[in-house]
Amino acid sequence: MTKPEKSTSTPIGAIGEFGLIDRLTEGLYDASDSTIKGIGDDAAVLDHADRRTLVSTDMLIEGIHFDLAYTPLKHLGYKAVMVNLSDIYAMNGMAEQITVSLALSNRFSVEAVEELYSGIKLACDQYQVDIVGGDTTSSMQGLVISITAMGSAARDQVVLRSGAQEGDLLCVSGDLGAAYLGLQLLEREKQIYLEAPDVQPDLEDQQYLVQRQLRPLARKDVILRLAELSIVPKAMIDLSDGLASDLMHIARQSGVGAEIQEDWVPIHEEAKLMAMQFKMDPITCALSGGEDYELLFAVDHRHEDALHDLDDISVVGSVKPKEEGIYLLSSAGKRHEIIAQGWKHFNEGGQPSNS
Amino acid sequence: MTKPEKSTSTPIGAIGEFGLIDRLTEGLYDASDSTIKGIGDDAAVLDHADRRTLVSTDMLIEGIHFDLAYTPLKHLGYKAVMVNLSDIYAMNGMAEQITVSLALSNRFSVEAVEELYSGIKLACDQYQVDIVGGDTTSSMQGLVISITAMGSAARDQVVLRSGAQEGDLLCVSGDLGAAYLGLQLLEREKQIYLEAPDVQPDLEDQQYLVQRQLRPLARKDVILRLAELSIVPKAMIDLSDGLASDLMHIARQSGVGAEIQEDWVPIHEEAKLMAMQFKMDPITCALSGGEDYELLFAVDHRHEDALHDLDDISVVGSVKPKEEGIYLLSSAGKRHEIIAQGWKHFNEGGQPSNS
Repeated sequence: MTKPEKSTSTPIGAIGEFGLIDRLTEGLYDASDSTIKGIGDDAAVLDHADRRTLVSTDMLIEGIHFDLAYTPLKHLGYKAVMVNLSDIYAMNGMAEQITVSLALSNRFSVEAVEELYSGIKLACDQYQVDIVGGDTTSSMQGLVISITAMGSAARDQVVLRSGAQEGDLLCVSGDLGAAYLGLQLLEREKQIYLEAPDVQPDLEDQQYLVQRQLRPLARKDVILRLAELSIVPKAMIDLSDGLASDLMHIARQSGVGAEIQEDWVPIHEEAKLMAMQFKMDPITCALSGGEDYELLFAVDHRHEDALHDLDDISVVGSVKPKEEGIYLLSSAGKRHEIIAQGWKHFNEGGQPSNS
Repeated sequence: MTKPEKSTSTPIGAIGEFGLIDRLTEGLYDASDSTIKGIGDDAAVLDHADRRTLVSTDMLIEGIHFDLAYTPLKHLGYKAVMVNLSDIYAMNGMAEQITVSLALSNRFSVEAVEELYSGIKLACDQYQVDIVGGDTTSSMQGLVISITAMGSAARDQVVLRSGAQEGDLLCVSGDLGAAYLGLQLLEREKQIYLEAPDVQPDLEDQQYLVQRQLRPLARKDVILRLAELSIVPKAMIDLSDGLASDLMHIARQSGVGAEIQEDWVPIHEEAKLMAMQFKMDPITCALSGGEDYELLFAVDHRHEDALHDLDDISVVGSVKPKEEGIYLLSSAGKRHEIIAQGWKHFNEGGQPSNS
């Protein structure tokens, strides 16, 4: 379990908003050629030249999207950037800039915010993305992180969700369901900790699952490798809500059906073991668990051989006519209709739930 | 006094996040040629062609930036857009797109969110700006509005804060201090209401001040008129924190000093009267009151005659050598050093203050 506060604890009020911004943005430099003017004016100035500009935004709220009881602030900052960059890659673009807005309650010290920001900066460094603006303010309660990511793609290579056609292959990167199981594990350990604070958490054997939840990686590498092979997907989405829900977006917007082969869905060994511990079906975790931030894409079947040579890309099914619907073909050869079960932040009672 | 809830009250949970987004975005169409793909994919796709892209973001937090006791939700939505567009105009650009992220506690009904959104849409309609993305989620407490505005400007006509030179004229649009006095007035009426709910608020004679606080207008018209006259300011900023603080940004970033003539600072008659009621000096309200969202710009003095013909633009002073500092020349001919007194959201105790 981690604490939001570190040992040195300077109240934000002691250095003020401008002082805080100065400390957070110290040493920032602009890595991308398309950043003409970053932080320090009314707006950032970008030049995406003859490419198209891509924009996506995500807001993370303490108590809804993350729990600081088991989320280290540095990891949180890193993940907040990843979930935004992931959306830009899902358009077949390169992420180049972000703006970062933070609302902080007075429970956060300057050092805590610096820790959060160190994760944001690390993500930006690794992905060569510039922080070009933002807003830092106080909140009445809890932490709010709102990030907008920008990037660009060649005019004729932007990939929407709507281009999938019958006969296309459906592919995913990486493996699915692990981030969801990592979350279940962290929630279980939190409960154990709350009931018996002396019991040491037993997460050593589940490093992979915990990492997948706390420190997802946006798949820039997949976009770069597809470009090297001159493969332009016909439709693409990032897997934030789970394969079922995200596949449904592609199918609906493309006006097609889809078949997923249960046996072809990549699930990590640790995820399979943990699913069984939780008495869950691994394929259910892969279909309905969110936050893997892998890419799901439809690609012309003529690329099949090229795709087979790519590590870490799995063909999981194919695009079908609309009237066939969206279904899973089980190991036993049975068809199961796929229904969306994404993340839901508003439920009947108004309380957050991740069902 | 207004209430966040309207008479019909549908819990957000009853229609879910996607249902809410559908209702809010119903009837949206893209007005700007540069919006290639708006809401509905992983990211929006924009094409600013050979112009430069401008990006700015602002986050508004209930209890810190606004008080729903006297802020109608529709006005709040409108203002949240304005404060963001204002930053794009302050770069001498045209605002074209926004993303809107909302975090809502379960106290907000679907109808309340629709009311908020109607103000956002009205602002977008009037300024021909497209809503191209966003995020809608629940919050543990209160309302959070995070907006990112995008726009574009011709490559050689982006105006930073850093281009002011000795001898330039300093100009402001509109009049200053009224938004601050409108806030004081609303705060006073709120206190009266809390102490004696039966007393009717007496705001009829102060419509102008209240409007300036609740419904500021971003000065797109000024940018268009300057363009018609082929005037490109050398430095520009929008007045969100008050003339003193914002002038200081221009002076510091341009490496210059500045003289402001007290008698030339435009202050509305209602603001002067109200300042006296509050026993404040009107010029102090103009210098240190924020949220007017007027434009402050430095312009070559050869444009002096052209500027005099422009309604609603006042020359308020001139750019001086750095060593002369930044000062107000009073009606009596005395020099007063100007010190920044912008809005401060973090103070010693961690409580919000607007001092």
